[in-house]
Amino acid sequence: MIVFDRPVKFEEVDAANIVFFARFATYAHEAMEHFFSALEGGYAALILTRRVGLPAVHVEIAFTAPARYGDVLRIETRVAKIGNKSAVLWYRMYHAATGRLACELKHTVVTTDLRTLTSCDMPDDVRALLTQHLELPA
Amino acid sequence: MIVFDRPVKFEEVDAANIVFFARFATYAHEAMEHFFSALEGGYAALILTRRVGLPAVHVEIAFTAPARYGDVLRIETRVAKIGNKSAVLWYRMYHAATGRLACELKHTVVTTDLRTLTSCDMPDDVRALLTQHLELPA
Amino acid sequence: MIVFDRPVKFEEVDAANIVFFARFATYAHEAMEHFFSALEGGYAALILTRRVGLPAVHVEIAFTAPARYGDVLRIETRVAKIGNKSAVLWYRMYHAATGRLACELKHTVVTTDLRTLTSCDMPDDVRALLTQHLELPA
Amino acid sequence: MIVFDRPVKFEEVDAANIVFFARFATYAHEAMEHFFSALEGGYAALILTRRVGLPAVHVEIAFTAPARYGDVLRIETRVAKIGNKSAVLWYRMYHAATGRLACELKHTVVTTDLRTLTSCDMPDDVRALLTQHLELPA
Repeated sequence: MIVFDRPVKFEEVDAANIVFFARFATYAHEAMEHFFSALEGGYAALILTRRVGLPAVHVEIAFTAPARYGDVLRIETRVAKIGNKSAVLWYRMYHAATGRLACELKHTVVTTDLRTLTSCDMPDDVRALLTQHLELPA
Repeated sequence: MIVFDRPVKFEEVDAANIVFFARFATYAHEAMEHFFSALEGGYAALILTRRVGLPAVHVEIAFTAPARYGDVLRIETRVAKIGNKSAVLWYRMYHAATGRLACELKHTVVTTDLRTLTSCDMPDDVRALLTQHLELPA
Repeated sequence: MIVFDRPVKFEEVDAANIVFFARFATYAHEAMEHFFSALEGGYAALILTRRVGLPAVHVEIAFTAPARYGDVLRIETRVAKIGNKSAVLWYRMYHAATGRLACELKHTVVTTDLRTLTSCDMPDDVRALLTQHLELPA
Repeated sequence: MIVFDRPVKFEEVDAANIVFFARFATYAHEAMEHFFSALEGGYAALILTRRVGLPAVHVEIAFTAPARYGDVLRIETRVAKIGNKSAVLWYRMYHAATGRLACELKHTVVTTDLRTLTSCDMPDDVRALLTQHLELPA
């Protein structure tokens, strides 16, 4: 499990004055970039140099409590499943101040050759990092 | 079923050169705003004047084909379920040019008093509009 | 002068409950995409097929009145100047309901070969379209 | 002068594969939030508790070099001018890896009572912090 603290930014709320629901998927992606920063060159090198990406094929979000400007979300990233060419990243986002769960997100990605946008074998270092944080959901 | 055509904008792609996955949730929200434009004053009056919102409690997205800048997405909005204080909006987003499905999204919302952020009875006109477009997923 | 109506979206306000200032630059870009829709294949073909882009080299925005969710902005796009490889797009964004000016934006762009990211000659159809809407600021 | 390092995120580029120009204004706002983190409770308390905001009345951006995914921008924030109820924040954004200037941004803000959206006296701690970083542009 890798922890990433993410303060809500001024412009991330909506006209109901709470964080716009789609942004939680963006936060998940930031947590994923952070997760993969342990790779050589980080996620950016994976994308830009090695031309391997991790497009989503499935996303599921359960919202528990709203977040507001001024809140800090503590995002725990785990790996719920690893397949041949896919993996399920699993994020739990808590209010850092109270420990209250804001949302839970499951994010299924497929290792993809970005030159052709077709699935490709999972690189060894990607698999090793995912495996290191594999934890089955209760 | 209500149809909403949404061209992909220049800044909506990511470093893999395809529409960033979280934006499909934003597209769904735009389609929802469009869906509720049939209410008096539209979705904006619901939010700002009547102070009733529809925060998401659950979102599920299945991605089928990537979208790129230059594509137009044809978004079909249906209602998959209506509860006492909740509803499931169901979006299918197609490539307008080819008819190919880009993604399918289920969006569970709860009618909410925005003054207190607690659930509230579903307004009659909201229920009527949802009912009019109720269609069970196959 | 080309007019483009742009309703403010639910997620475009900030924690001060007004449209986040940076979004007006995004609105300007949308108005520019709309402006160039008169080209064959529109702005997307210019970017994707012809590989000519119009990156900004200078932007200036004067804000006059805030905008909120529920507002519709009427964006007038004119061309304030045309150079060899550059042009100044000039946007005035009004509240459609009241006619009140929300902001004025000057956007200097340079015709650029996107393969090399170096400036290139202005394509004839781009110049013709710009010239058609050239209007000197008072 | 306060320095803020900001890695470009995966979804911040556009279809020309460079950081979308409007995002630099967002980066400036993040640098401003960072700048004001020295206030008690930070910028969030200023907005949410004290109900004082700093809406922009003028923004000017000069772009010098594009930025791409994988780049880190080093943002230097200075104050170019302090008035009665206004101030000019002045940002220089460099490529952290090369020291090359990406853009320079001047951001004129007005201290504003967010309850009424009218200008208000500049709070003493805001003025003190601004004064501490006042530096006249060359």
